[in-house]
Amino acid sequence: MSLVVQKYGGSSVADAAALRRVARRVVETVRSGHDVVVTVSAMGDTTDELIELAHEVTDSPDAREMDILLTAGERISMALLAMAINSEGVPAQAFTGPQAGVITTEHHGRARIIDVAPGRLQRAIAQGKVAIVAGFQGLNEETQDVTTLGRGGSDTTAVALAAALGADVCEIYTDVDGVFSADPRIVPTARKLARITYEEMLDMAASGAKVLMPRCVEYARRFNVPIHVRSSFSGHEGTWVVEETEAGGDMEDPIIAGVAHDKSEAKITVTGVPDVPGSAARLFEAVARADVNIDMIVQNVSATNTGVTDISFTLPQASVPDALRAIEADAEAIGYAGLATDDAIGKVSLIGAGMRSNSGVSAKFFAALRDAGVNIEMITTSDIRISVVTRAAHLEKAVRAVHTAFDLDTAEGEAVVYGGTGR
Amino acid sequence: MSLVVQKYGGSSVADAAALRRVARRVVETVRSGHDVVVTVSAMGDTTDELIELAHEVTDSPDAREMDILLTAGERISMALLAMAINSEGVPAQAFTGPQAGVITTEHHGRARIIDVAPGRLQRAIAQGKVAIVAGFQGLNEETQDVTTLGRGGSDTTAVALAAALGADVCEIYTDVDGVFSADPRIVPTARKLARITYEEMLDMAASGAKVLMPRCVEYARRFNVPIHVRSSFSGHEGTWVVEETEAGGDMEDPIIAGVAHDKSEAKITVTGVPDVPGSAARLFEAVARADVNIDMIVQNVSATNTGVTDISFTLPQASVPDALRAIEADAEAIGYAGLATDDAIGKVSLIGAGMRSNSGVSAKFFAALRDAGVNIEMITTSDIRISVVTRAAHLEKAVRAVHTAFDLDTAEGEAVVYGGTGR
Repeated sequence: MSLVVQKYGGSSVADAAALRRVARRVVETVRSGHDVVVTVSAMGDTTDELIELAHEVTDSPDAREMDILLTAGERISMALLAMAINSEGVPAQAFTGPQAGVITTEHHGRARIIDVAPGRLQRAIAQGKVAIVAGFQGLNEETQDVTTLGRGGSDTTAVALAAALGADVCEIYTDVDGVFSADPRIVPTARKLARITYEEMLDMAASGAKVLMPRCVEYARRFNVPIHVRSSFSGHEGTWVVEETEAGGDMEDPIIAGVAHDKSEAKITVTGVPDVPGSAARLFEAVARADVNIDMIVQNVSATNTGVTDISFTLPQASVPDALRAIEADAEAIGYAGLATDDAIGKVSLIGAGMRSNSGVSAKFFAALRDAGVNIEMITTSDIRISVVTRAAHLEKAVRAVHTAFDLDTAEGEAVVYGGTGR
Repeated sequence: MSLVVQKYGGSSVADAAALRRVARRVVETVRSGHDVVVTVSAMGDTTDELIELAHEVTDSPDAREMDILLTAGERISMALLAMAINSEGVPAQAFTGPQAGVITTEHHGRARIIDVAPGRLQRAIAQGKVAIVAGFQGLNEETQDVTTLGRGGSDTTAVALAAALGADVCEIYTDVDGVFSADPRIVPTARKLARITYEEMLDMAASGAKVLMPRCVEYARRFNVPIHVRSSFSGHEGTWVVEETEAGGDMEDPIIAGVAHDKSEAKITVTGVPDVPGSAARLFEAVARADVNIDMIVQNVSATNTGVTDISFTLPQASVPDALRAIEADAEAIGYAGLATDDAIGKVSLIGAGMRSNSGVSAKFFAALRDAGVNIEMITTSDIRISVVTRAAHLEKAVRAVHTAFDLDTAEGEAVVYGGTGR
């Protein structure tokens, strides 16, 4: 008998019918001889609706009270799911994050899990019960207040529970069939990956692939929890996210895992920055104080004798106003000439652990973009990833060109089934 | 400085605008120099909607899971109210029943408060904060599970907190101006009572007056917590529910507090019951096993020589099927001839502590009904109450006749303002 942790997202539990379908899948897993712990998100758009309600009441909701409010969402779905499983004849009990022993930092709205004390879950499992755990939430032990983990936190809850309970697998149920070599909405010939390493998945996620959040993959890598990403609608085998050795590495494995893209970033260019030591530091210290996450940075080679240079960096579009304010506030110390923002950019990334041992990947990547007529504006690389910034309007053809150049297209175009929720 | 516990019901916090209005009232109370603890119900129809959702998922929701589900309702309203008060510049924090130290029995769905450990609330008050507490919920300490107190439980939460904190008053805000001498929808000349004793209020509540639940009044009486029932819409002085000595008792106080009515009961008549010792006991033992609460009982005087009698009793209409099943299951032991159910009954009750020291109240009551052409089918009395069962169709004219006979009508008919929610 093995222990399986399953996680169901909001679209998998959007209404009563969906909840009953999830209940039947849990019951199937129990009946095939497994112990099961389930993590569940809030139903459908509940979280967004609660956020809207808070903003109807006040422009500046308190973080502590916001967490109390939002955790009502998982409270509803976890109770209903436990009822639905019970009514199928399998005993189940629902537990809040605090009851499940999920201990977090004190940062309301973006707490991090620091420990899991799963005693209560273990007792439930020992009694033959399915434990249903609210995702996305935990306890700040010092103040005994509930916290939330931020968007995508339910995946992290599931992985953290799997690690603490020594589960054999953490199954993440979603509305797609798994992790694909590219977004199938842009590349219809994209293939579902049977396996992907933690490192590749981390880079895919950080490069715009939406299927898993980076922090969840990071947690899984740290505790070596195998993740199985699969559809709650189709029941097909999905994608396994595993250690590099388990992911294979034999001759037949592709060098490249996939192509990711991201249209959510903007570029800020700071012109006329004095080309002296410390300029860049002052600039990015100002941005860091505004709590803005920066992705790529490019500093132009200084033109001879001008003594000034331009610095460009990319960041989430939503953070642009904060970043601009921070830079303008420190304008004198930084000493730049101008500021320009560009929202019309896209990022294409090629990810694959096989890059490490294969030369020529970058050359092939750039050639593919050139042949497709896509201009490259910025470049960054890591040992398993190359990312470039292009015009947003060129993003889709860039993704398709790279996908084809690296032989990632399926022969006849796999039938890609998106989930039944129509979203 | 005094400590005020305020309770706001679902219609007082039905939407964001209503929540902001309640927040302003709390802030006013703080600014006039009081410490304030607020108990809040779920917004509008939230509880009913959650119950409906549960029944969409399963026909037989677990009691433990149902409590987890329903407590999400107060979680939402308490967080939003704390935010709204904070945004008015007064610090506020929300607490669940368990966080507020409300300890209950283990009966999910109908738990009773057994203790309140208000340490955390006292710390918040000492820090100058308004404590917002979820009504209707508490903690089963043994299992560390949340429980609910059943309908009307938020009033009880408020009174229990007021008792534990030694509050000067427990203000129950509702959508009417206070407790009236009769339901103003039936008796437009009903008067708002300035004061009523715990005993009278208990009998009013038990006789169909909806404004307070009996258990809440019982709790207030036990700990001598003054309750002030008032409107969250008008701001008028409402009705004080207090001890008999405080309620007055001087010559000018009326003998009668009010007239209550109830259309929610049915009558079951068991005919041909052997007129021997033990018959009634067997009958009511059967009904008790079905967990049915019985109100009035009448046994006919046995006609000479027949050796059998008829027994009638009243009970909530919703309990009729359970009661009939229980009686039929024990038919042989009870040995009756027939069973008849009558849903078309009404109950009129006259309540007043002054009855104890005034003779002639019953005679005047029966005369008023006779003059109005209302037939009496059953009678029960206590030291401060007389109740009769009539045809349901005669109920309203019976209430009006009795109200007038005891000089309860206001001179010009007070303007009775029902709340702004339209319900």
